[in-house]
Formats: sequence, C-alpha cells, structure tokens
Amino acid sequence: MAATLTPFVQLEARNDSTAMTDSLSDLARQLDTFAHERDWQQFHSPKNLASALVVEAGELLEHFQWMTEEQSRALAPDKRDAVGAELADVLLYTIQLATALGIDPIAAARSKLNINEIKYPVDRARGSSRKYDEL
Amino acid sequence: MAATLTPFVQLEARNDSTAMTDSLSDLARQLDTFAHERDWQQFHSPKNLASALVVEAGELLEHFQWMTEEQSRALAPDKRDAVGAELADVLLYTIQLATALGIDPIAAARSKLNINEIKYPVDRARGSSRKYDEL
Amino acid sequence: MAATLTPFVQLEARNDSTAMTDSLSDLARQLDTFAHERDWQQFHSPKNLASALVVEAGELLEHFQWMTEEQSRALAPDKRDAVGAELADVLLYTIQLATALGIDPIAAARSKLNINEIKYPVDRARGSSRKYDEL
Amino acid sequence: MAATLTPFVQLEARNDSTAMTDSLSDLARQLDTFAHERDWQQFHSPKNLASALVVEAGELLEHFQWMTEEQSRALAPDKRDAVGAELADVLLYTIQLATALGIDPIAAARSKLNINEIKYPVDRARGSSRKYDEL
Repeated sequence: MAATLTPFVQLEARNDSTAMTDSLSDLARQLDTFAHERDWQQFHSPKNLASALVVEAGELLEHFQWMTEEQSRALAPDKRDAVGAELADVLLYTIQLATALGIDPIAAARSKLNINEIKYPVDRARGSSRKYDEL
Repeated sequence: MAATLTPFVQLEARNDSTAMTDSLSDLARQLDTFAHERDWQQFHSPKNLASALVVEAGELLEHFQWMTEEQSRALAPDKRDAVGAELADVLLYTIQLATALGIDPIAAARSKLNINEIKYPVDRARGSSRKYDEL
Repeated sequence: MAATLTPFVQLEARNDSTAMTDSLSDLARQLDTFAHERDWQQFHSPKNLASALVVEAGELLEHFQWMTEEQSRALAPDKRDAVGAELADVLLYTIQLATALGIDPIAAARSKLNINEIKYPVDRARGSSRKYDEL
Repeated sequence: MAATLTPFVQLEARNDSTAMTDSLSDLARQLDTFAHERDWQQFHSPKNLASALVVEAGELLEHFQWMTEEQSRALAPDKRDAVGAELADVLLYTIQLATALGIDPIAAARSKLNINEIKYPVDRARGSSRKYDEL
C-alpha cells in the first residue's frame, strides 16, 4: 500500500465539512480493514486492483449486452438490484485503487469535470456525441 | 433518465448527516447539469453508460498492462496523475449510471461489503486469493 | 447482418489456398448458421457483439487478476483449460463481429502487424515497453 | 513462453489440410518473431497479454459506445476501417495469448461451439437472449 496516505488523513484533521469526512472515506476505511483482516494486501497491487476493476465493469456490462437501449431505461426491479450489486463492486475497487495510489477520488473527479467543461463547450458539444478532438 | 430518482431526493429531505448530502451527490448534481446543458441525455441510456464505464476502466488498466506489480506500487508522479484522471472518468460514469438507474451507490457498496464479510470469513479467506465458492 | 459479405465470398470463388478457405472461415460459417437457427441476428448488432466481446475478455482476465506474472506462466492444466474456454469465447465473438461488419479478420491482422513493424522499429523498441509515441 | 508448444508443431508435422497450416498459425509465427526481435517476451506473461486483450477490446467498444444499434449496423467506411484496426489488435493478442499458453485457439473455439449447441438447444433458445441457466 502507498506510504503517503495524506489526502484522507489531512482532510480529517481539518474537519472540513466539504472534505472527505463522508461516505466514500468511511468505505475506504472499511475496505482497508477488510483487506488487512484477511492478509490480502499482498494481492492488492494497483496493477491487480485495476484488473479487478475492469473485470467487475465487464460483469456490469454483461447485464446490458443483449438489451436495447430502451429496455435498459426500464429495468425490472430484480435486474436493477443485480446491476446495483455490480456497480457496487466497481465502486469498491475504485476506492481501493484510489487508496493504494494515495489519490483522492472526489478531488480527481472534480478536476476531470472541470477539464470536461473546457473540452466540451456547450455551444459546440450540444446534441453531439463526437469526441472533443472532433468537435 | 429514470423517473424514480427517490434515493437522492428522500435523503436530502430527511437532512440526515449520514446520508448522501456529500461529495458524491454534489458530483451527481454537477454531472446531471453538465449533461442537460449539452442535451446529452439522449446518449445516456444505462446500456451506453455501462459501455462507457468499461471503456474508461480499460484506459485505466492500459497504464499497468506491461508493468510488474512492484512497479505499479511505486508510480512516478506524472504516471500517478494520469492514472488518477482515468480513475476519475470511471467514478464519473459510475455516478451517472447510478443516477440513471435510481441507485444509491454508497448504499449499494455498503450492502456488498456486508455480503463480502459473509462470503469471505476471515478464518477461511485469510491469505488466500481463492474465490468464495472455492474456499 | 451487413449486406456486403464480399470478403469471404470473393476469396472462396478464387479458390486461393492462401485465402480464407480455412479454419477461421469454417467457424464463421458455423457461427452464422448457429445464430440463424436460433433467430439471434436481432441481438447481434455490431454494438452488441462488441459489448459481448469485452465481457468475455473480462472473464478471461478474471482468471489472472490475483495471480503473479510468474504463476500465469505456469498454469495448472485445469486452469489452462478454463482460460482456453474464455479465449474461445473471445475468438468466437471476434469472428461474429468481423462477419457482421464484412471485415476479413486475417487481412486486418496482417495489415496491423505491418503497421506495428513501422511504429516499433527494432532498434528503438528493443527491450522497451513504451508506447510508440514515447519511443 | 510455455515449454509445450506442441499443438502447432504436431499439426505442421502431419501436414493435415484441415489443421493449423493456415492463416492463424502464420500470424502466430510472425507475432512470435516480432516479439523476439524486440526482446518483448519479458513483458508477455499470460497475465499481461490478457490485460492487453481487454484494453484493445475496450478500444473497439469505444467506437460504438454512443451509437444506436441501428447506426452500428450501417457504419461509414472510415469508421469501419477504424473498428477493423481494433478488431485486428484483439485478434493479435488472442493469438499471442494462445501461443503463450500452448492453446490451439481454433480447436478451443470448435469445442466451445459444440458446448454452446448443447447449452442453447434451438427449440428452447430460439428468439431468446436469455442466458443458458435461465432458459
């Protein structure tokens, strides 16, 4: 596991309500304990965690592979729950990978959203599915 | 987008400090606005969002594909930032998919962690990478 | 399915022994029959086949996610067979996607290998895992 | 690389026209030479090749992620070529992984197709996208 786990620690000391004293860091702590209790850090290299993340994302996509887009917008409750379980797996590995690399996932996400605002200006991106380098 | 967006709405009305009045729901709101401003909901069927999620997870894994596990535990700062950007993309699509399906990702993650506690009891899972049905 | 399925037809008419009168096109024919017998073409849009391909690739990776590279070079026979079954699934969807798009997979692969020869000249790429734009 | 590379060698000695003396094994040989010239075997553990395969499958899916199924059935020529290049990458890694594990990909695919015939009997599977355990 990364030696510098500062993002989480620093934020807690500040007790900033807009900081990571929320559900995502709670989960991060629980996952960390879960892995240590089972002596699993040996398997949790970032390389392996990134693989596990893709595997779970594939299991999530599997629920939709033969569906039409319309059907995917109107899932039956049991199918929605099954998808929710895979989505949970994706989130859990995302958090573990972030922890292992000392990355604050929320800060990274905010940063990326700002970059996307610039890459996809409303007047040029509106109604288009083109990638930013094709706008 | 799904008609039943109750998870987020209900939690906010209760003004529960342990609920989704945190960074993940802030991001959810920003992503929702971002997509509406650009008239992108037409492309955001759950089927398509699940595909986009896998694609980003693949881009994240690409950074590690030729690395050894040891190298992945000691990333150079610029590589760590690049991985952080892909991890952000994965989180952003995870949130958008959760919103589209009316799923509370934190609740789903907590639920899954509880299930994992049962599937992987410490005494049987300790030090082993075996899947739960092979323990 | 694509209307222009010329690559396969043209090659068979020429009766060229270096052409697609081999195992891959045999499999392509069998898969085509298999899908038609089951009235499955309705589900086999290229979009869906590409999703199925990623899903199978994820199932293949799942066998390796917690293994070390060394362990992956020395698989037990039953694990090798399990991996072989997923590799088969990946190949089957690759062929079906090629058929649906009227693409000759062998020709495309040869073409890409030639491009790779240029992108990764031996004197610059030797012993390096860097991507071509970083050589 | 695997010590037992018998599937390919045995088939060539027999000079069986229905065996692997065809385009797939030609490509396998070229890929092997390509990697050796560049001293790349060190990076080509099955674990790494499986990761590379998923990454390429993701790049292939990326072309379809915002498209409708209808649009994916009518690709413009340049888009079809771009997809063909990614499909080629998937096939190249499939072959390299098969070689590394001493697996005959065609034999494995034929085997899987036979298993699928049993798992999805025409009378029960016709017109349905259900998985075999839900038929």
